[in-house]
Amino acid sequence: MAQKLQPPRGTRDFYPEELRVRSWLFAHFRAVADGFGFEEVDAPVVEHEELFTRKAGEEIVEQLYHFELHGRRLALRPEMTPSIARMVMARAGSLPLPARWFALTQNWRYERMTRGRRREHYQWNMDVWGEPRITAEAELIGAIFALLDRLGVPRDAVRMRLSSRALLEETLRAGVLARRPEAFAPLCVVIDKLDKIGADAVVDLLTDPQGKVQLARPDAQQVVDWLGLRDLETAAEGLAADAAPRAQLAELFDWLDAYGVADRVEFDTSIVRGLAYYTGTVFEAFDTARNLRAICGGGRYDRLLQTLGGPALPAVGFGFGDVVILELLQDLGSLPELPRELDAVVFAFGDAERPAAIRLAAQLRGAGERVELVLANAKLKRVLADASRSGALRVYLVGPDEVTHGEALVRDLASGEQSRHPLPV
Amino acid sequence: MAQKLQPPRGTRDFYPEELRVRSWLFAHFRAVADGFGFEEVDAPVVEHEELFTRKAGEEIVEQLYHFELHGRRLALRPEMTPSIARMVMARAGSLPLPARWFALTQNWRYERMTRGRRREHYQWNMDVWGEPRITAEAELIGAIFALLDRLGVPRDAVRMRLSSRALLEETLRAGVLARRPEAFAPLCVVIDKLDKIGADAVVDLLTDPQGKVQLARPDAQQVVDWLGLRDLETAAEGLAADAAPRAQLAELFDWLDAYGVADRVEFDTSIVRGLAYYTGTVFEAFDTARNLRAICGGGRYDRLLQTLGGPALPAVGFGFGDVVILELLQDLGSLPELPRELDAVVFAFGDAERPAAIRLAAQLRGAGERVELVLANAKLKRVLADASRSGALRVYLVGPDEVTHGEALVRDLASGEQSRHPLPV
Repeated sequence: MAQKLQPPRGTRDFYPEELRVRSWLFAHFRAVADGFGFEEVDAPVVEHEELFTRKAGEEIVEQLYHFELHGRRLALRPEMTPSIARMVMARAGSLPLPARWFALTQNWRYERMTRGRRREHYQWNMDVWGEPRITAEAELIGAIFALLDRLGVPRDAVRMRLSSRALLEETLRAGVLARRPEAFAPLCVVIDKLDKIGADAVVDLLTDPQGKVQLARPDAQQVVDWLGLRDLETAAEGLAADAAPRAQLAELFDWLDAYGVADRVEFDTSIVRGLAYYTGTVFEAFDTARNLRAICGGGRYDRLLQTLGGPALPAVGFGFGDVVILELLQDLGSLPELPRELDAVVFAFGDAERPAAIRLAAQLRGAGERVELVLANAKLKRVLADASRSGALRVYLVGPDEVTHGEALVRDLASGEQSRHPLPV
Repeated sequence: MAQKLQPPRGTRDFYPEELRVRSWLFAHFRAVADGFGFEEVDAPVVEHEELFTRKAGEEIVEQLYHFELHGRRLALRPEMTPSIARMVMARAGSLPLPARWFALTQNWRYERMTRGRRREHYQWNMDVWGEPRITAEAELIGAIFALLDRLGVPRDAVRMRLSSRALLEETLRAGVLARRPEAFAPLCVVIDKLDKIGADAVVDLLTDPQGKVQLARPDAQQVVDWLGLRDLETAAEGLAADAAPRAQLAELFDWLDAYGVADRVEFDTSIVRGLAYYTGTVFEAFDTARNLRAICGGGRYDRLLQTLGGPALPAVGFGFGDVVILELLQDLGSLPELPRELDAVVFAFGDAERPAAIRLAAQLRGAGERVELVLANAKLKRVLADASRSGALRVYLVGPDEVTHGEALVRDLASGEQSRHPLPV
C-alpha cells in the first residue's frame, strides 16, 4: 500500500503551493508567446511510437516511454516537435506561412534517476514554420530573453551559447567526413555529450568500432579540437570566405544587437544539441555559474518535415523546460512568494442563517471575488483562525442579528476593523 | 507514413482555432473554481496501475490504458479522483480540512470508438475533502450551475438529476440485498447502464449466474421498478421515517433553493453513477433535450480513502468534461466566435530598417501588445493582406523615410486611417 501514497518515481504531485508556482511560470511563458504573436497549439500525449523513433542513437529516443496496446506501438511524447511537425504536415499547402506556434506541454523520458532529473517535465516550445531567414532565430532568442527578463532573472545570470550545425557540417565534409556524410547526425549526438563526459570519452565514442560514427583516432581528435574554438572567424577558417553558415551567424549577431541581447550570447562551437534533426543554428542557455543543466535549447531543423515524409519546409524552434529555470530562480532567491489568494470567507452562525450566507457568497462571487463559504456549523474562533491562515482579506459574519437587520458584519483581517455589508434578499 | 499524419485514434490535435476554444472553456472552469475559493492541484498522468484497479466491474477500470514498463505496471489515469485521494492520504493529519481542491486534467479511456466518443478528454474536477455535511454537495452543485451560467447556457437547457446511493443501499439492505451487502457496488455499476441498455437488459445482467450480482429475477425486477420512482417520499417508503439519506436529500434541496438552482435539479432514483466508490449523494447533469451524454457527474465518496488504506475522511466531488459541454454549446449556437487576437504587425521594408522595426516591436510588446514582426523582406501588399487575415488591428510600416524621420507609419486596418508613431532609439 505504501507505493500507492507516492506518485511513480520521477513524476510529481502538484499540491496547491506547487501548482501556484507552476501557474505563475506558465502565465509568463504564455504572456511572452502572446506578445510575440505566436498561437498556442497542442497534440496528444500518446502518439504512435514511429513518430519519435530515429536511427541516430539519441538519448531521447532510447528513453522513450513506449508500450504496446491492442496491437499498436504507442509512446508518451518525449518532446513536442515531432507532434507539431505532424500537425504542420497534415495541413501542408493550406497553412498560412510562416506559422508562429507555441505549446506548453508535459513530456516524458524514462531516465535513470539522479539528482535533479525527472521522468516528466513541462516544456514551453516556440516554433516558426516556413521562414528560412535567420531573422526567425533572432526573434526566438529575443523571446527567450524577454521571458528571462519577465521572470526577474538578473541580466548577467544567464548566457546563451550558440553555433551552427551547418558550419560544423561544412567543416567536417571538407575534412574528416568527406567520404561519410551519413555519419553526421550520429556524430552530433556523440559530441553533444562533450560537456558531460569530457574530450577523451567523446574521442572513444567517435572511434568505437561498434559505434555509428567510426572515425579514425586523429580525425576524432581533430573534431574535438575544433569544438574548443570560440571565435567564428577561426572556426570558419577551413571554409570559403563567403560560406553561408558563417555569414548567417554574423548576420544573426547583428539582429540580436537590435533586440538588445547580443552581449548575452556567445559563439561556441561545442554547442551541437543532442537531437538528430537540427540542420542549422543551434543554441542553449545556461546559468552563468554553470551549476545547472541547460535552461533551454533549440535550433533550426529545415529537413524534419521531409524525414517524416512531408514537403521541404524550413523551421526553427526552441524548448524551455520548467525544472531548471525554477531551480535557478530558487538558487538566485528570485522566486516570488505566491500565497493563496482569497478575498473573503463567509460564515453563517447556524443553519437558520445559512441561506442568507449562501446568497451573500453568490453575490460576492458574481462581483469577481474569491469567496470561501464555511460549510460546517463551526465555532467563530475556529473560523477566524482558519480564515487568517488561508490569507483571506475579510470575513463576513452572518448571525441571527445580522439576518434580522439585513446586514452582515464584515471584519477586515489585516486591520481588525469592522463594517457592515447589506445582505442580498 | 499516412499513419504519421494523424494523431492516434480517439485523440485530438488542437490547432490554434481549437486551442482558443479550449482555453476559453478552461478559463471559465478556473474562474468558477477560484470564485468558490478552491485551490488547483495536479498529479502525474502516469500512475501505478493498482491505484485504479477495483473489483466492481466498472467500465472505467476495464478501459484502462495500462502497460508494463521496466517491470512496473503503470496506467494513464482514467479519472483524477484516485490521484487526488492519494495526495490527500499522503498529507492526512497535516492537511487543513475541509480542503477545497480543483483540477483540470486530461484523462484516458481505451473505449470502442463510436460517434462522439474519444479516448481522451479533459475534465474539470472540484472536490471537498473532510466535510460530512450535505452543504458541501450544495456548494458543488452551485458551482456547476455558476459555470453553466457563465458559459451562456440558457437556464432551461440543462437539468440535474440527483439521488442518493445511501438511500438506495438502505432500501436494498432492507430488501433484496439483505443477505448480500457486498453485492451493492457491482449492482450500482450494472444499474447505471439502465438509461443506455434498458430495463430488460439490466434485469438480465442482475440475474446473470456468471455475474457479480446474481439476484433472483423477481428481486431484480423490484430493483428496476424502484429506479422508476421520481418522488423522494415514495422512494423512501420502505424505510424509517427519519432515515438519514432521506432527510439529507430534503435538506439539500433547501440549500439549493438558496443558491437559486433548486428548480434546475430533480430527484431521480435511476441516477447511481457507474463508479464503485460513491457512497452518498450522486448527481448528473444532462441537456434537457437528452441528445447528449451526461455533461457532468459526481457525488459523495466517504469511504474511498479507506479503500486505499487511508483514514476515514468524508469527501464529495464532481467531474465535468470538455467534450459534451462543447457539443451542447455548439448545438445551442452558444459557442462564441474566438478569432485570433493580434494588436499589431510590424514590417521593415528591408534589412536596413530591420533594427528599427525590431526595437519598435520590443517597445510595443513591453507595453503589453501582441505583435507579429514580419521576418522576411516581403512585399507590402502581401504583408497587408496577411495582417488583415490575421485579424491584426494595426500595421506599423518602417521604410527608409520612416527611419530618416524617426516615425513609423501606422495604418489602422479597420478604418484605413494612417498616423505616425515615434520609433524608439
